[in-house]
Amino acid sequence: MNVTSTYTVSDYLLDRLADLGVDTIFGVPGDFTLGLLDHVDEHPSISWVGTANELGAGYAADGYARMNGVGVVCSTFGVGELSAINAVAGSYAEHVPVLHLVGAPTEAVQAAGRATHHSLGDGDFTHMLRMSAEVTVAQEMLQHGTATAQIDRVLAAMVAEGRPGYLSLPADVAEQSCEPPTTVLEVPANRTDVDQLARFADAATQLIADRSPVVLADIFVHRSGAVDQLHHLLKVGGLRYASLLWGRRVVDERGSGYLGLYLGDATQPDVRAAVEDAECLITAGVCFTDLISGYFTQRLDDAVRIDLQPHTAVVGGETFAGIEMRDALAVLAEIVPPRPDLPVSLTTSMGDVEPDPHAPLTQKELWEAVAAALTGNDVILADQGTSFCGIAAQRLPSGAVFIGQPLWASIGYTLPAMIGAAIAAPHRRPVLLIGDGAAQLTVAELGTLIRQRIPAVIIVVNNNGYTVERAIHGPEMNYNDIAPWRWTLLPYALGGDVSTVRTHRATTQAELTGMLVDAAAHPTSLTLIEAVTGELDVPPVLEAIAAAAASANR
Amino acid sequence: MNVTSTYTVSDYLLDRLADLGVDTIFGVPGDFTLGLLDHVDEHPSISWVGTANELGAGYAADGYARMNGVGVVCSTFGVGELSAINAVAGSYAEHVPVLHLVGAPTEAVQAAGRATHHSLGDGDFTHMLRMSAEVTVAQEMLQHGTATAQIDRVLAAMVAEGRPGYLSLPADVAEQSCEPPTTVLEVPANRTDVDQLARFADAATQLIADRSPVVLADIFVHRSGAVDQLHHLLKVGGLRYASLLWGRRVVDERGSGYLGLYLGDATQPDVRAAVEDAECLITAGVCFTDLISGYFTQRLDDAVRIDLQPHTAVVGGETFAGIEMRDALAVLAEIVPPRPDLPVSLTTSMGDVEPDPHAPLTQKELWEAVAAALTGNDVILADQGTSFCGIAAQRLPSGAVFIGQPLWASIGYTLPAMIGAAIAAPHRRPVLLIGDGAAQLTVAELGTLIRQRIPAVIIVVNNNGYTVERAIHGPEMNYNDIAPWRWTLLPYALGGDVSTVRTHRATTQAELTGMLVDAAAHPTSLTLIEAVTGELDVPPVLEAIAAAAASANR
Repeated sequence: MNVTSTYTVSDYLLDRLADLGVDTIFGVPGDFTLGLLDHVDEHPSISWVGTANELGAGYAADGYARMNGVGVVCSTFGVGELSAINAVAGSYAEHVPVLHLVGAPTEAVQAAGRATHHSLGDGDFTHMLRMSAEVTVAQEMLQHGTATAQIDRVLAAMVAEGRPGYLSLPADVAEQSCEPPTTVLEVPANRTDVDQLARFADAATQLIADRSPVVLADIFVHRSGAVDQLHHLLKVGGLRYASLLWGRRVVDERGSGYLGLYLGDATQPDVRAAVEDAECLITAGVCFTDLISGYFTQRLDDAVRIDLQPHTAVVGGETFAGIEMRDALAVLAEIVPPRPDLPVSLTTSMGDVEPDPHAPLTQKELWEAVAAALTGNDVILADQGTSFCGIAAQRLPSGAVFIGQPLWASIGYTLPAMIGAAIAAPHRRPVLLIGDGAAQLTVAELGTLIRQRIPAVIIVVNNNGYTVERAIHGPEMNYNDIAPWRWTLLPYALGGDVSTVRTHRATTQAELTGMLVDAAAHPTSLTLIEAVTGELDVPPVLEAIAAAAASANR
Repeated sequence: MNVTSTYTVSDYLLDRLADLGVDTIFGVPGDFTLGLLDHVDEHPSISWVGTANELGAGYAADGYARMNGVGVVCSTFGVGELSAINAVAGSYAEHVPVLHLVGAPTEAVQAAGRATHHSLGDGDFTHMLRMSAEVTVAQEMLQHGTATAQIDRVLAAMVAEGRPGYLSLPADVAEQSCEPPTTVLEVPANRTDVDQLARFADAATQLIADRSPVVLADIFVHRSGAVDQLHHLLKVGGLRYASLLWGRRVVDERGSGYLGLYLGDATQPDVRAAVEDAECLITAGVCFTDLISGYFTQRLDDAVRIDLQPHTAVVGGETFAGIEMRDALAVLAEIVPPRPDLPVSLTTSMGDVEPDPHAPLTQKELWEAVAAALTGNDVILADQGTSFCGIAAQRLPSGAVFIGQPLWASIGYTLPAMIGAAIAAPHRRPVLLIGDGAAQLTVAELGTLIRQRIPAVIIVVNNNGYTVERAIHGPEMNYNDIAPWRWTLLPYALGGDVSTVRTHRATTQAELTGMLVDAAAHPTSLTLIEAVTGELDVPPVLEAIAAAAASANR
C-alpha cells in the first residue's frame, strides 16, 4: 500500500492484484497510463516490465499467468489495447486469467466527445470495450465513485472463470482517492454438491469394479487446479496414463505408468490401443481440439468412460452436475483398486536407425538432441508448428513444465510468453523452441529478454520459412518464404553483450549437442542456437496433422 | 483473370481489386488463406508481399492506400486478423480505404462448431466479425452462392466511404466457381446538388466580396480527392494559406502564399494572427484533433468563415448540404478576386543562433539537417512523437508527400507503412523519421524493407526511450526507458548486406549532414542513420503539445 500520499483507485487496484499473487505487470506506457505507472513504481511488491510492443506484453502476461495464476497486461487506449488484443483472445481461448488494464482519456475528455488521439475520432469511446467483450469474461470502464466495486467485480469474475478480464481506467479516475480494501476479494467459489458426488461415487464404483482404469489427462486438470489430485490417483491406483498435447504439463512423461501422447489417428498404435481399447477409461480435463486430436479422430467408448470436466462428471453416459474435478479425482482415488506402479512395456518408435551425427541436421535428430538436453528444472515453451510437433515425439523429463498454445495457435506466442514464464518462475531454466517464421512475428521481445537478463536457451529452427504451412499447402510457393535473417547476430543487435549472450549455428546433430552442453555450462547466459534443417523436413506428428488440415480446408 | 482453370470466388475478388488499382496485397499466410494465395500467385497484375507479422502488413496496406487509393491486408482467422486489427482501426480513424481480407475455416467446419484452431473454442465463429464491425464500414462472411454480391457490397462501401471493409473468406468458398464480373463495380457516388451549389455560390460571393480570403487546409482535402481544386483556387486567387499538421500533404509549403502550420495555441504568432484575424477565412477539409490543435485551442470566427467538408459547405454559419468539396472549391476559384501570387513576408523563427556543427546533436539541429536534405521527390513518413513534431518546424520541399498519423497516433506505424508507400510509389525516395521507442514496436518489418530492396532513408532518433512520454509525464521514470539496441548493426542482422545497406551513427550535426549526403549519393541503397539526441531534448512543437496533454490527463 502506498503510504506517502492519498490512497487512490490505482493503489486499490494494485493492492487487489498483489493479493492475487501478482508481482509483475507487463506493458508499454502511453500518456493515458503514465499516472497509474507512478503508482506501480511506488508499490512495494509489484514491478513494471516494459516490453517492445503490446502484443509482446500480452503474451508475456499470459506466460506469467500460466506459471503464477494471474497475469496483467497494461496498455494505452485504442492503439495499445488493440495491439494486445490477439494475446488476450489467446488467453481467453486457452483459459488463462489475464487482466487487460487499459489507460483511457479522462471522464471529462470522453464526455466532451472530441477527436482525441488514440480514438476513432467519432466521439464514441466504447468501441474498444465492445471489442474486448468478445474475448474477456467481464469488462468495466471505471467511473468516479464506483471504481473499486467495478474492480472487484472484474477481478472476481476473472479468477472464478480462469479467463481474462478487462478494465478501462480513465487517467483521472486512476488518481481519485478511495478507501483501501478492508476484506479479501470475494471470489464466487464453485462447490461440489455432496449428494451428486455420492451418486457419482456409486456409479464410478460400479463401472470400475475390479478393473484398473487407463487415464487420459489434458489441460483442464491444470486449469481446474487438480494436478495434485490427478497425480495422487495415478499413484494409488498404479494406473497407466496418457495425455493430450495441450496438457503435457499435467502428467509425468517419465512415470512408470506413462503410455505416451494420444493424438487420435496420429497416435502411435500401441498407445492408441491402450487408450481406445481400455476396459475402463478415465478422461480428466480433456478438450479435443482439431490440432491435438488428429482433427477429431478420437474414438473413445462412452460406455466404459468416466469423463471429468471442471465442474461436471459423466460416468458411462450419465451426467453428474456440480462436481469439481479435484473432488471427483479424490473420490476415484478411493475407488480404484490399489496397485503398485506397473512399468509400461510399450515399444518406443524412436532411434530405430542410428543417425550420423555429422550429416546435415534433420528434424528427427534435432528434437532427439534437444530432448536429451532437457532437465526436470526446465520450463519448455514450444511454438505451434514444427517445434510443437517435433518435441511431441520426445518424452519430457519429470518435473519439467511444458507450455504450448495448440487451440489459439498464434505463431510467435512463445517468445514473449517465455519472458513472463521466466519472471514467474525465476529458478527454472526457460527453454524456447521456435521456428524462424514464428520468431519473426515477435522478435522484438528478444531485446526484452536480454534487457531482463533472462538466461534462456532458445532454439530457432531455421528452415527458411513457414514449414508448417508448406506441409499443409504450397510447399514450393513463395508466400511460404520469409526474409532471411542472421539469427546469430540478432541478439547482439538487440542489446546483448558477448559476456552474457552466446549464439551458435548448428547444421549437424553433433554440433547441436555440443552447443546444448555449452548452454548448460553457462547457466547465467542467454544462449541462442540457430538449428538449420531442410525446408520440407517435417516431424512425423506434423505430417499427420498437416494432412488432416489440408483435408479440412477443402 | 485466371484462364488456366475454373474461375473462382478468389479470382473474382482479385479481379475486382485489380480494377480498383490494387497491384499488391500485404499479409502473413495461414492455413486458411493458402488456397487464396495460389490465386494471388497466378494473378497477372497482383503480387503478394509477405511481412514479418500481421500488424506490419496492416500498416503496410495503409501506407500503400495513402499513395494508391486502396490497400489490402490479408490475414488468417482469429490470430492473424486480431494482430492486424490495430492497423485496420487506424485506417478507419484516419479515413484510409483498406480491405481486411481474412481466410476462415470452411463452412462445414464452422457449421460443425468444434474447437478449431485459431477460434475461441466455443463453436462461435462470428466473434471476430463483430470486433471488426467496430472499425470497418462494411463486413461480410462470404457464403456459398452469394459471395460475389457480398464482395461487391463491401468493396463499394469501402470505396464510397473511403474507410476499411472486412471480408471473411472460408477456405472452401474461396475455391467455389463463379462467373467473372461483367460490369465495373458500382460505387454509390456522392453528387453535388446544383441548387445548393448555386445558393452556396451566392452566399460565398457576398461573404468574400472584394476580400482576399486566407485558406486553412487539412487532410480531408486529400481524402475527398480535391487537392487539384484546392491548388487551383490558391493559384487563381493568389491566396495566402496555412495547413494543419495532419494535412501537410495537401499544400505546397514552399509556395509564395504559404503562411505556415496552424496549431491553435502552439502556432507561431504571425501565422496565428494571419489565420485567426483574417477578414475572410476558407477552411477546407479541416478536422481539429487534440494533438494538431493544441488541444482544441483554435479560435476561428464563424462569421467570416467558409468551411468546406467532404459533402457539406458552411458560409458564415449557414449550412449547404450535398455539396462535394471539389465542386465547392471550383466555385470559390471563380468567386475570389483574381490576384497574382503574393509572396508572404513572415519572419522565420528558425536559425536565430548559428549552431556549432560539432557540438552534440540537438533536436533542433537534427530536424534542420534532415529538412535540408529532403527533396521534392521524397515521400516522408514521420512517426508520432519527436519525429512528427520535430519535422513540423521545417518546411517541406515542393512536391514532397508527407504521411503521418496524428489522430490514431499508433507509434511504430510509419516503419511498415513506408513499405506500402514505397511499393505504391516506386519512383519516390522513401524517408522515414522515427524514434527508437517507436521503432521497437514494429522493427521486424525492417527485414521486410530489406527483403523488398526498398532504398529508403531511415532516421532513427535514439534518445534512449519514450521522450514524447517523458515530455508529458515522468521524465526520469524507468517506465519510459527501453531496451538499448545497436541500431547500426540491426539491418545486417535482419538480412542486409553491406553492398545494399549502409548504416551510420550521428552524434553531431556535421556528422548527420555528411551521412545524409552519403545517402543521397547511394540512391539504390537502404541507409539507416541512428541520430543520437538527449533524453529530455524535445522539439518546441512537442513541448507545447505535451503540456496540453499533461493538462488534459488530469
